[in-house]
Amino acid sequence: MHIAFCCTDTKAEPWLQGLQAALPGATVQLWSPGAALADYAVVWAPPQAFFDEQTALRGVFNIGAGVDALVKLRLPDATQAPVVRLDDAGMSVQMAEYVCHAVIRHFREFDAYEADVARQEWSYRKPRRRSDFPVGIMGLGVLGERVSRALAQFDFPVRGWSRSAKTVPGVQCFSGLAGLNDFLAATRVLVCLLPLTPDTESIMRKETLERLLPGAYIINVARGAHLVDDDLMALIDSGHIAGATLDVFRVEPLPAGHPFWAHSKITVTPHTSARTLRDESIAQIAGKIQALHRGAPIASLAGVVDLKKGY
Amino acid sequence: MHIAFCCTDTKAEPWLQGLQAALPGATVQLWSPGAALADYAVVWAPPQAFFDEQTALRGVFNIGAGVDALVKLRLPDATQAPVVRLDDAGMSVQMAEYVCHAVIRHFREFDAYEADVARQEWSYRKPRRRSDFPVGIMGLGVLGERVSRALAQFDFPVRGWSRSAKTVPGVQCFSGLAGLNDFLAATRVLVCLLPLTPDTESIMRKETLERLLPGAYIINVARGAHLVDDDLMALIDSGHIAGATLDVFRVEPLPAGHPFWAHSKITVTPHTSARTLRDESIAQIAGKIQALHRGAPIASLAGVVDLKKGY
Repeated sequence: MHIAFCCTDTKAEPWLQGLQAALPGATVQLWSPGAALADYAVVWAPPQAFFDEQTALRGVFNIGAGVDALVKLRLPDATQAPVVRLDDAGMSVQMAEYVCHAVIRHFREFDAYEADVARQEWSYRKPRRRSDFPVGIMGLGVLGERVSRALAQFDFPVRGWSRSAKTVPGVQCFSGLAGLNDFLAATRVLVCLLPLTPDTESIMRKETLERLLPGAYIINVARGAHLVDDDLMALIDSGHIAGATLDVFRVEPLPAGHPFWAHSKITVTPHTSARTLRDESIAQIAGKIQALHRGAPIASLAGVVDLKKGY
Repeated sequence: MHIAFCCTDTKAEPWLQGLQAALPGATVQLWSPGAALADYAVVWAPPQAFFDEQTALRGVFNIGAGVDALVKLRLPDATQAPVVRLDDAGMSVQMAEYVCHAVIRHFREFDAYEADVARQEWSYRKPRRRSDFPVGIMGLGVLGERVSRALAQFDFPVRGWSRSAKTVPGVQCFSGLAGLNDFLAATRVLVCLLPLTPDTESIMRKETLERLLPGAYIINVARGAHLVDDDLMALIDSGHIAGATLDVFRVEPLPAGHPFWAHSKITVTPHTSARTLRDESIAQIAGKIQALHRGAPIASLAGVVDLKKGY
């Protein structure tokens, strides 16, 4: 069995060693143009040339949950070589942490307390009501469900929106374009966990964001292209939106001089909300490669991407 | 039925109105020296003179969870007039929020990311292992149990310590002085939720704090007198303790010029971790007054304070 590893922005050596240790019978190699044909590929944002050359693949494993960088490419026939994304692999608990931390920070006004304390001021703020803080999650996949469960534990009203209708315990669910306005209209904190597809690109723009409850907060942990940056800035300036916590950006790293960097109502983090954990990911990918190799049907694997949907 | 309200530092009018509305048959009055004898008292840090004059009380209701300011006074005979503290009343979810927010902030190094972002630096930090972050909770009452449940949901190993042996699902429990060292020795984040009693005063001092795992964090949401301020500072300076989140202080408001205000590794909040919520508290106290008045046995009320234990 030959495995090709082709990942931009990722230190290859520990992945190669880890995959080799997990699949001792396999040949695991870092891909470069002209390399031998591999049976399976482990990738992150590979170039088109990779797929143009690798014509014998039987499975493509993405070392992340989002496959937007991958599905833009010309890929092998999915019935022969499915694209498989990471299925949790330690990411959902990180996402629950990140989102709960941000929601609590906004709800409890910790930023305002911090500013008071910086002036050595012992201040009092009237506690906000939890019922005034419905949190709306866009995207109810593995990550969205885990985040909604974590938020419900702090007694926030939790709402959810997804492309197709879903039922999540404890979550008031909306779906499709028909349900979007009702979902937004009673949401105070909007959390974006959607896959990036042509349908969801720029979903957070003036027309949608201004439907949120006044004094809304935005938490984007999906992809930068879900948000129209200028529309967010304008709605913060107008006071309709009270603040945002952004982990993802249209261009990453966020370019020098971008107004998000220093905006007092925008918290920036460097795409760190849910990091790929190497050991968990290698174990998961190796297990799926072994299953495919033993002849397991594609449909039996968790995380197989529907290329038409884009996630 | 006469109810006397005697609370320092609290705006009386909304409490008086709320109690009156909840107990329409009662006379609810703000106490002042020489006032008529009341049947029940609703108090927060009242003066000794209140109890010296009020000799006909049948119940004393504290509008907070901690009764350390109350049990220092000469009180009526507890078999005639039990001291009853608030039993949750919306406080435990706030405590869970505050503590989870602080633990996640420390675990995920959000302070360090914030400092990087302030320099417009897009940085990378190796994710920490959850197994290296056992959280130890001192105090396993209503608040401690709720906090432990919230933390366990984020997959942190949770340990607990209490005066008498307890069993809490998912928590590795230790008890008594005999169990304290073992509890501390594998704790990375120490959360104090103890009642303040002669036994627990200064429990967080050099000898105990230096037993924590290196790079420990302290979260104090109980009382300022649980912590020896200078010992914390010395252990932060030595590097053994990596940081602290403090909501309570020996003197409140925290005095001007106190070194905690501006310390880069200490986060100060103005005793805001779990605030008394007026509506919930009034409903709970009114219910208990009605129960006592109907002749319910003292032992049937939740939150009756054991004056010998001090909580």
